[in-house]
Amino acid sequence: MANKLLSISRRTRSTVYTDRVESTNIKAYTVYNHMLLPTEFESLEADYWHLCEHVQVWDVSVERQVQITGPDSNRLVQLMTPRDISKAVVGQGLYAPLCDVDGGIINDPIAIKHSDNCWWLSIADSDVKLWAKGLATGFGLDVKVTEPDVSPLAVQGPKAEALVARVFGESVRDIRFFHGKMLDFQGTEMYVARSGWSKQGGFEIYLNNPDLAHALWDELFEKGHDLQVRAGCPNAVERLESGLLSYGNDIDDSNNPFECGLDQYIKLDANIDSLSLPALRALAGKQSQQLVGLIFDQTMDFKNKKVSYNDQIVGEVTSNIWSPRFKKHLAFAMMQSEYLSNQSAIEINGIIGIITDLPFSQKVLQP
Amino acid sequence: MANKLLSISRRTRSTVYTDRVESTNIKAYTVYNHMLLPTEFESLEADYWHLCEHVQVWDVSVERQVQITGPDSNRLVQLMTPRDISKAVVGQGLYAPLCDVDGGIINDPIAIKHSDNCWWLSIADSDVKLWAKGLATGFGLDVKVTEPDVSPLAVQGPKAEALVARVFGESVRDIRFFHGKMLDFQGTEMYVARSGWSKQGGFEIYLNNPDLAHALWDELFEKGHDLQVRAGCPNAVERLESGLLSYGNDIDDSNNPFECGLDQYIKLDANIDSLSLPALRALAGKQSQQLVGLIFDQTMDFKNKKVSYNDQIVGEVTSNIWSPRFKKHLAFAMMQSEYLSNQSAIEINGIIGIITDLPFSQKVLQP
Repeated sequence: MANKLLSISRRTRSTVYTDRVESTNIKAYTVYNHMLLPTEFESLEADYWHLCEHVQVWDVSVERQVQITGPDSNRLVQLMTPRDISKAVVGQGLYAPLCDVDGGIINDPIAIKHSDNCWWLSIADSDVKLWAKGLATGFGLDVKVTEPDVSPLAVQGPKAEALVARVFGESVRDIRFFHGKMLDFQGTEMYVARSGWSKQGGFEIYLNNPDLAHALWDELFEKGHDLQVRAGCPNAVERLESGLLSYGNDIDDSNNPFECGLDQYIKLDANIDSLSLPALRALAGKQSQQLVGLIFDQTMDFKNKKVSYNDQIVGEVTSNIWSPRFKKHLAFAMMQSEYLSNQSAIEINGIIGIITDLPFSQKVLQP
Repeated sequence: MANKLLSISRRTRSTVYTDRVESTNIKAYTVYNHMLLPTEFESLEADYWHLCEHVQVWDVSVERQVQITGPDSNRLVQLMTPRDISKAVVGQGLYAPLCDVDGGIINDPIAIKHSDNCWWLSIADSDVKLWAKGLATGFGLDVKVTEPDVSPLAVQGPKAEALVARVFGESVRDIRFFHGKMLDFQGTEMYVARSGWSKQGGFEIYLNNPDLAHALWDELFEKGHDLQVRAGCPNAVERLESGLLSYGNDIDDSNNPFECGLDQYIKLDANIDSLSLPALRALAGKQSQQLVGLIFDQTMDFKNKKVSYNDQIVGEVTSNIWSPRFKKHLAFAMMQSEYLSNQSAIEINGIIGIITDLPFSQKVLQP
């Protein structure tokens, strides 16, 4: 379908940075967690090359934090995820798929441990707060579930470390991947982590004081001038090349973690009290479909995203884009396991594509 | 902010009618329950006059149904809402605000009773399914919570009854407001109710067979040609004139029902097991803010939606629009009760507006 306008209302919430984003060459948004998420500035391709070479500042306020505090906070978080959270240290973030009693994926946040009695779930696009509240009420847990006024700003790209060090100090260079520190900005301590939704390296700054939003944005741009800093956003090209999954696009609550290649986060013999573990033990090794990569040598226009074979539907394309770097059309697809066990290629609109594991390996991407 | 493009992806789900909507003069969408909702066709004003004079077909698939079935289904629905649901008859819909243990509004669906063990919550924009699932798991209830493949199509406007009768038969004329019947369309029985998100009268057809989506759309247009049927959508002008609240715009989970004028749905002495009733009993009569109507004699451009008085913020505009019929600018605003008890007018950008109850009375709207 052709691009249409997005109607803006209070329900599609602006962020603390929207004024600044609107002062750039922003072209398009999507709505994510009831909030505006920029999707394109100059063009998808120009944004992509810039991200891979320089540094970008991304308004990812849509990564809402579901804060769980109180004596039962560890218990509630562990009930929600099949990943063992018991070894997490303060300041660490864990990629933690959340699964319901049937094993379906409710969301795939980064679970950040802020103290022994405080977790933030930095969520993808679904109202995790409501699930957490329902569980807390039903189980009678001594927790408080809230959405604090926290607005993450991502700094991504190969020059991100240089820029973040100029704003927050040299100590950011010691932060390990998926770890973070409380660091000062204009008198306010905020969580700064080495993370972000690209593979170009970078940081996420969890701004916890909306009054500093413009100051933080402006200082990153002032100090990043010689690094060619620009406003950016999660980039669809970079995301697919890097094999990063998107909840709602590639995964939803009809999927279990095994289908989505998330096996590594689940230890079936873990001695933890997680709602989904019994269902996942029963599902392990029996998945009837699998998320895979597809590679085509030419640009594709998927009018119908269903994949057919001998007049049977054998899968569905969940995300796809042309890669200007590799000169290939890349796709993620949920394909029937039976088909995958017999075939290593598919045909869509008469074009043959090869099937490969995710994330894509450099070997299959290079011509 | 100026209009921007909406980026479309699988996550912002298309509906079973999107192909048909795209064949019209659709201009803009919003995203609602992770799905596309049309917001404008010819223009807001032209759409408005047409809706008030003729009949429109609205793709309101975004009104997702949270289906709750099983022996404990009545218990779960009653836990979720402070409205007494015990007297509902099969086929009836009840406007039923859902409130959490603090009294905050989680959503404000129509709860439709389909049988003694089956409810549909026809929801506004939040993931009620997740809250229901969390409660069901935590309380150990014998229910199944699902989102069935149901795509409501609204037929709204003064000629709606004539059109729906041509498609579903004369018996639709006997359906009372907020009641419905199972009626046949091409061999499939589906729920048809007298309801919809306008005050122009009309029906909602809860299509439960996606294969019939195009046939239903096409038949409504074929049989409505002489009624000047058009594609339409919930119209912001008509909504504000009619005083219809929008969850996410005018209400959210930081509000309780008393602040929003929903007192009539809550009997504080009801002998029901509802999660929020204890909190609501404590809150009753003590609200510190109130949703009210504002009327201005000229068009307003609310750059800042906060309402100030003597340098103090005393409220916030939640929705607003120019009414071409009444030649007034209408707004809903959440105002501090203390201000309301002393003042009957406000000043924004130097313009005086009067404060009035919601819904607006004809007396205050007429010049």
